[in-house]
Amino acid sequence: MLDNILIVMVNTTHSGNIGAAARAMKNMGISRLVLVDPKADINEEALQRSSRADDILHQARTVATLEEAIADCGLVVGTSARSRYIPWPLMTPRQCAAKAAEVAPHNNQVALVFGRESSGLTNDELHLCHAHVHIPTDENFSSLNVSQAIQVLCYEMRLAALELDKAAAVDQPAEAAEEGHGWGVDWDYELASHGELNGLLQHMEQTMVDIDFLDPNTPKQLMSRMRRLYQRAGMDKMEINMMRGMLAAVQRQANALKALQGADSDGDSH
Amino acid sequence: MLDNILIVMVNTTHSGNIGAAARAMKNMGISRLVLVDPKADINEEALQRSSRADDILHQARTVATLEEAIADCGLVVGTSARSRYIPWPLMTPRQCAAKAAEVAPHNNQVALVFGRESSGLTNDELHLCHAHVHIPTDENFSSLNVSQAIQVLCYEMRLAALELDKAAAVDQPAEAAEEGHGWGVDWDYELASHGELNGLLQHMEQTMVDIDFLDPNTPKQLMSRMRRLYQRAGMDKMEINMMRGMLAAVQRQANALKALQGADSDGDSH
Repeated sequence: MLDNILIVMVNTTHSGNIGAAARAMKNMGISRLVLVDPKADINEEALQRSSRADDILHQARTVATLEEAIADCGLVVGTSARSRYIPWPLMTPRQCAAKAAEVAPHNNQVALVFGRESSGLTNDELHLCHAHVHIPTDENFSSLNVSQAIQVLCYEMRLAALELDKAAAVDQPAEAAEEGHGWGVDWDYELASHGELNGLLQHMEQTMVDIDFLDPNTPKQLMSRMRRLYQRAGMDKMEINMMRGMLAAVQRQANALKALQGADSDGDSH
Repeated sequence: MLDNILIVMVNTTHSGNIGAAARAMKNMGISRLVLVDPKADINEEALQRSSRADDILHQARTVATLEEAIADCGLVVGTSARSRYIPWPLMTPRQCAAKAAEVAPHNNQVALVFGRESSGLTNDELHLCHAHVHIPTDENFSSLNVSQAIQVLCYEMRLAALELDKAAAVDQPAEAAEEGHGWGVDWDYELASHGELNGLLQHMEQTMVDIDFLDPNTPKQLMSRMRRLYQRAGMDKMEINMMRGMLAAVQRQANALKALQGADSDGDSH
């Protein structure tokens, strides 16, 4: 999908923005940049701001008109602070990405068009677009830097592309099972079983009795809250082992203390 | 919700990035910027790149350490290319925004932490975070400009805030808003702050040293894993108090034992 996305910048006036746009594109796996009658060069500043996305800058196509840039495109979306004059189909960035994900895989070119730093796209340019996309901004401060707008759109395109990949892979099983414990990373230890968690909580309760912190006849608020806490955390086996190691050490202390106190009171009674 | 979001930039080296970050924040309706030991000034370049978001630059807080920046925060999320060493809870930007939308409306401060341009956040800094967020990038070109990363996260925060507004407007008393800490029920206590959680972890570490379970000179795997566990759980203030009550009881035992052992060895030496 991402191979069929074009980023089109119209009359850009700052070289740095072209460079920053190239970097933002490359971060998201998008590589095709088209410059419409640019008012700035791909100079040292552009290369520097691109941070090694210079391949995108070198391959960028430069054309004279927006018409030329989008000639081969099946879907053209223009960025706009607001749709003006005539109401035009308006999408959120997410809807725009969903639409692109529908058409781009079928060999349709999709152009995302970004206007001038100072004034955006003209009405004529906006009317060349199938739809407009509006990045939801604070109404009192609505003008995004063009490279930031490109970042947001490319980010949504990438998410949509990843969703497509996932959907394509759904035939293979065990997808969810590979996701570890729902923490979004490969976890290093297995989740503790319910029995292991119970073992920990019983160990904790016994230890608290051993050190005279908990009266076994008292209401169990403490242990109820501890159960809620540790269940909620989704503990792994290593965490259980570490906690139990600590509790065992506490119990050894308690036993040593009781032994000495016993010896003492034995001594006293002699 | 957005009023309780803090953007925290650690050791930023380029003034332009601070300015661009301020603009990205303001576009999305987020205004609280914290600079941790910045290596660049808020100079002319920063003001220029902020494009009239200079109010955010002027109000930015500068602090010496990350700990100081996040002391009052109930949720701390660090941006990371990948979670390293010990696996840590990992979220997508969208999941991060959903989590923020759960907790921020309940007067919990949420910090989004961004690292150095050159090298991101250190492992120690990442371990201070409840969770990490990874912006899905092309694996061959994964380093986003810091202001672009801030743009993406602030964009997701704004979308989540707009969803909240919508939910609140859809008929009656914002049900979602009553959900406390995202556990789906009215919670009885506030989330613990980062400082309170740190207090617990330091107390735990000291207690483990007191009972000779932990050698203060040993590698810190134990405490890293405990930090991850308790941060992940999203502890409330009552849970912290209970845990500390238990630890204090353990310490009293340890002190009593040491006193008796001391008395014993005094006795022996006579």
